[in-house]
Amino acid sequence: MKLARTLVDGTPTFILSEDGDRWVAASSVIPAAESYADLVASLQDGISNDDLLSAPEVAPSEFLPPTGALDKSIAIGKNYVAHVEETGSDIPTHPVVFSKFPSSFAGATGDIVVDSGVTSKVDYEVELVVVIGKEAKNVSKEDALSVVAGYTVGNDVSARDCQRRDGQFDYAKGMDTFGPIGPWITSADEVADAGALRISSAVNGQTRQNADTSLMIFPIDVLIEHLSRVITLKPGDLIWTGTPAGVALGMDASAFLKDGDVISCEIEGLGELSNTVVVR
Amino acid sequence: MKLARTLVDGTPTFILSEDGDRWVAASSVIPAAESYADLVASLQDGISNDDLLSAPEVAPSEFLPPTGALDKSIAIGKNYVAHVEETGSDIPTHPVVFSKFPSSFAGATGDIVVDSGVTSKVDYEVELVVVIGKEAKNVSKEDALSVVAGYTVGNDVSARDCQRRDGQFDYAKGMDTFGPIGPWITSADEVADAGALRISSAVNGQTRQNADTSLMIFPIDVLIEHLSRVITLKPGDLIWTGTPAGVALGMDASAFLKDGDVISCEIEGLGELSNTVVVR
Repeated sequence: MKLARTLVDGTPTFILSEDGDRWVAASSVIPAAESYADLVASLQDGISNDDLLSAPEVAPSEFLPPTGALDKSIAIGKNYVAHVEETGSDIPTHPVVFSKFPSSFAGATGDIVVDSGVTSKVDYEVELVVVIGKEAKNVSKEDALSVVAGYTVGNDVSARDCQRRDGQFDYAKGMDTFGPIGPWITSADEVADAGALRISSAVNGQTRQNADTSLMIFPIDVLIEHLSRVITLKPGDLIWTGTPAGVALGMDASAFLKDGDVISCEIEGLGELSNTVVVR
Repeated sequence: MKLARTLVDGTPTFILSEDGDRWVAASSVIPAAESYADLVASLQDGISNDDLLSAPEVAPSEFLPPTGALDKSIAIGKNYVAHVEETGSDIPTHPVVFSKFPSSFAGATGDIVVDSGVTSKVDYEVELVVVIGKEAKNVSKEDALSVVAGYTVGNDVSARDCQRRDGQFDYAKGMDTFGPIGPWITSADEVADAGALRISSAVNGQTRQNADTSLMIFPIDVLIEHLSRVITLKPGDLIWTGTPAGVALGMDASAFLKDGDVISCEIEGLGELSNTVVVR
């Protein structure tokens, strides 16, 4: 099952689809779900395709971020060895936790708007994003995947100059439109192994990142165990799981994103983001 | 005007008071406000005491965090010179931005629960917390205070061992109960100058921090200008503005919080937090 959000008659509306082709309003299938968190919890519990068949079809226009009000958008840094090496950092002994502000989210085809007075080193980072479906505290690695409702694709756009200057990542990665996410959340039951998916990015069609989620230093179950040991995860919370090697920071200066560049991020079976950079 | 949250017949309920003595249910005064963000926006617009007088009184039990679902809980590190010096860091050239997860919030008298398997160096940090009342993007320093609905007191409890290990702050400062906040939000119109308030903390009655918010490196208006330049602030968003000198990290190891310690945090005119440490 896929959960997305689009404009219907100008109003942001959550939609569901079994095949990614025929979409229906989520409210026509799960009228009791009053929020994004409720919808994600329903996704976790399982939504029958039979319920979708009788609902009227809606035609999605653009795909907005498939999220709504949420408690935490947690992000993990330095989680692929080759990426840590390209940034000149040490391999972490524990997950490196920061935040990706919800106000930074952009849709699957939205613009990435850069303030040239603030940053001139804008980088991309394709990431597998985990969507939590159940409140979770102190969950073991063995039980961790039972609290995952689904997965989506994220681009953890980063102002490298601000990131280096500040030390802390949240400002450099938290600017408006610096978090393209989507196009939809794919329910966990449709992903055989989220720890073995091709993950790639391209700038203007040229491949930059091309790896596999099996290369995470701290895989999804370990992240959930580590986080939930002391942090209550809530339905709708996101975990951005880090990016593989191939970011501009590891290349020469010409590799940073420029006005008009199109950055695409794709994960096997989960869909693709394609966002245009607009420098102002 | 003060906005707080307490249990009424077992249900978390927002309450309002003009004098901090007689409280009424917020819903009896502003029935149209459906959320914490709506209430904060109303606080920003101004709530007349006349409307409170006719509403039935409620007796608050404990004070819960005076917040609800919010977009961002932004925190600023290294924002007082003497504190930066006691931690052995360099004075930052720009605000150091991280996040304080809403799931970490505790009430004004709630326990601070420490997992002894995760950290043995738990520290306190009294902070002035700014509550945003209006959506704000690209606000100048001159206009910055016009988007502030009010102020409250926060304790940015920090696991120093995890903080040092991770580099990024969000895990070390984001554990459940590591964010006592309250007891209430005081509306901005009642605070003559938030940049000139006594701010102090004490452990078991012994003063640890005792400073003035005028000592911030980046004062509130500068923080709002810097953040809103690239990050849309939303009603209900919080900005934890950093802590003055006197934290345990700058003392000998015996200064860290221990089981049974009572940590009090007070800001002139805004109230006091008093939380007991429970080590498990």
